[in-house]
Amino acid sequence: MTNIDLIYLQNLDAVDPLSSKRHAFDLQDDLIYLDGNSLGALPKATPAALQTVVKEQWGKSLIRSWNSHNWMQQPTQLGDRIGQLIGADKGQTLVCDTTSVNIFKLAAAAVAMRPGRRKLVTETGNFATDLYLLQGLQRMLGQQIEVVAVPRNQVLETIDDDTALVLLTHTHYKSGAIWPMSEVTELAHQHGALMLWDLCHSVGAMPVYLDQCSADFAVGCTYKYLNGGPGSPAFLYVAKQHLEHLEQPLTGWLGHAKPFDFTDQYESASGIEQTMCGTPAVLASAALACSLDIFEQTDLHALRQKSQLMGDLFINLIRAYCPEFELVSPEDPSLRGSQVSISHPNGYAIMQNLIECNIIGDFRAPHILRFGFAPLYVRYADIWHTVQTVANIMATGSWQSPRFHTRQKVT
Amino acid sequence: MTNIDLIYLQNLDAVDPLSSKRHAFDLQDDLIYLDGNSLGALPKATPAALQTVVKEQWGKSLIRSWNSHNWMQQPTQLGDRIGQLIGADKGQTLVCDTTSVNIFKLAAAAVAMRPGRRKLVTETGNFATDLYLLQGLQRMLGQQIEVVAVPRNQVLETIDDDTALVLLTHTHYKSGAIWPMSEVTELAHQHGALMLWDLCHSVGAMPVYLDQCSADFAVGCTYKYLNGGPGSPAFLYVAKQHLEHLEQPLTGWLGHAKPFDFTDQYESASGIEQTMCGTPAVLASAALACSLDIFEQTDLHALRQKSQLMGDLFINLIRAYCPEFELVSPEDPSLRGSQVSISHPNGYAIMQNLIECNIIGDFRAPHILRFGFAPLYVRYADIWHTVQTVANIMATGSWQSPRFHTRQKVT
Repeated sequence: MTNIDLIYLQNLDAVDPLSSKRHAFDLQDDLIYLDGNSLGALPKATPAALQTVVKEQWGKSLIRSWNSHNWMQQPTQLGDRIGQLIGADKGQTLVCDTTSVNIFKLAAAAVAMRPGRRKLVTETGNFATDLYLLQGLQRMLGQQIEVVAVPRNQVLETIDDDTALVLLTHTHYKSGAIWPMSEVTELAHQHGALMLWDLCHSVGAMPVYLDQCSADFAVGCTYKYLNGGPGSPAFLYVAKQHLEHLEQPLTGWLGHAKPFDFTDQYESASGIEQTMCGTPAVLASAALACSLDIFEQTDLHALRQKSQLMGDLFINLIRAYCPEFELVSPEDPSLRGSQVSISHPNGYAIMQNLIECNIIGDFRAPHILRFGFAPLYVRYADIWHTVQTVANIMATGSWQSPRFHTRQKVT
Repeated sequence: MTNIDLIYLQNLDAVDPLSSKRHAFDLQDDLIYLDGNSLGALPKATPAALQTVVKEQWGKSLIRSWNSHNWMQQPTQLGDRIGQLIGADKGQTLVCDTTSVNIFKLAAAAVAMRPGRRKLVTETGNFATDLYLLQGLQRMLGQQIEVVAVPRNQVLETIDDDTALVLLTHTHYKSGAIWPMSEVTELAHQHGALMLWDLCHSVGAMPVYLDQCSADFAVGCTYKYLNGGPGSPAFLYVAKQHLEHLEQPLTGWLGHAKPFDFTDQYESASGIEQTMCGTPAVLASAALACSLDIFEQTDLHALRQKSQLMGDLFINLIRAYCPEFELVSPEDPSLRGSQVSISHPNGYAIMQNLIECNIIGDFRAPHILRFGFAPLYVRYADIWHTVQTVANIMATGSWQSPRFHTRQKVT
């Protein structure tokens, strides 16, 4: 057994430098929310800020807001703010579209930048959209390229001089396992391949160092750890040196050098703006801005430290009180994101039972229970209550109730 | 001169069956808003509805809302509601992404569906993003296809048996000129080509009959006449008979037949859902829903009738009081959308001056002043005040003030 107990965890909360951050979120005190890795919590400042944009900017200033409220600058301004969280110098990050669309843009750009190379390397079991967008690109381009998806332990050896692009999710959505960004990027570069990192499960959960790792491209969403709200716009990153020769195919009017000239011929903007396609999502961007305010007052290293410690504590307690579960995530906290996944043949029903107890994690087929520790609003004591509740569910067999067995589409 | 005067127009307002609709919008009484063709006005119901989604659904139910508040069904539900405005039977319209991204999806699909055909026909001076996305597709596919953009009067003769796709904007963004949808679609089909209609400046301004015209594809935005809010998500339409064999390249996870199985191999959903790519924009979609509520209480024929009459009255009055302007839009109301464009060498400064008078239209290079008559909230009397103010600006030469000559990015 472990000597970790509730008092110990409460003491950690008492001295946690991030403990006050939970007050920035609109979370009920009795809710234990361990799904910030899927949909982040609502910052308290968001509703009022959104009302201002809706009622004052849209409602009163109407079309004039594109100038007077700088709507058109949102994608680059928010992009630069996210850049600070992912180690990207200014002018390389843009908020736009969805992660999926942005993957397509950058994967297609990589193919154009590496003519003659056939392979797009990724891992099987990667988040589905990463695989699917590469497949869509392949279906479109035919024999010219080939998506090579191999198991995680074969990815590195698969990267070769015929590889145009390597696309990996930095923190795996299911296991939480982290790829060593610097080493993998360097290996890709040794073979002349370009490296695209999907940061969906990393951004806002840990510091990331894209510039320092010489990453070529990155994408990510803003509705998980970044708390931008359901379906908030995604971001993409293009390293400075690629901006001049980037050829991304979604050449919408707002990626044009002079969009309001409405000329017939596309001419790419020179900066990261060239990756913009259609009109930016103004309302959703306003919501995202509120969450970035919180991050700008947060030490990312303290965030990461708390996240790792929480994962360790959870693993210890699960082992002590719920030995029937198997650990799916890496035990080494340096190789693990801000989530811990455990598996059980009855995982789905157990998670439904847990959610009914006001402890919200999620489930991923076939057997995985995911617990996300968003360090801005998860408390150390939450870990105790979660594990004790799981233990109780298992001891009483309450998960066997038929009401926990009806499959829903999400969670 | 004309015998139309303010009394006459006020009498039209008094008997206008749509006059009460303006009360559904948050517009100040002294504001004359003639730019609903660029950004629609704010429905009064939107702020509260958005707050509910933000505070209750996102804030309180969090991740559970994907099921409990049917977030995942928004794209098809809103799509079907828009379908009612564009003559599309259920299951063919989806709300997603931007117009630009959707053009790319469907143009690429058309190329795949018409192998061996090289030409993508469109018109020069089409809205820029339509041209640019076809060019992006061409750059990606190389010699396989060719974008053939010709002046409006040569479009029909350019469509031939080597044409894969014809892409036209139903109502021209600058002139307001309307293409005869049925005839052009039929001509395209006679040559075996597919027809994609851009409805950005038509939807919500007039009834459209996609099914009846046998259109293959359509796209459109929802932030103009549909009042969805700045950057609200776009929609696309795919005719039923194409759903089974559609090959659109943006194969994101939510277009998969079973997205939550997270399998490695993409397998397209069978219905219109296959055109979905990434996670839907939940907040923006909630705003859009409020506006569609208004349309569902509106007779589209009455809407179109008012719109045409307003355009006629404006043209008459401009001719009478401002003869120095040239009419750019078609005079025949059946060939004209819900906007009237006039031109003047000093158009930019004149429009800035007008905006300062609280009459908001917009400007499009090089010389065009656009006046949009969104029939839900523009009053007949507004036309009188607008024309008299323009006449006064010209008579006094007030537009010559230097402050009206500073160019801004967006009008």
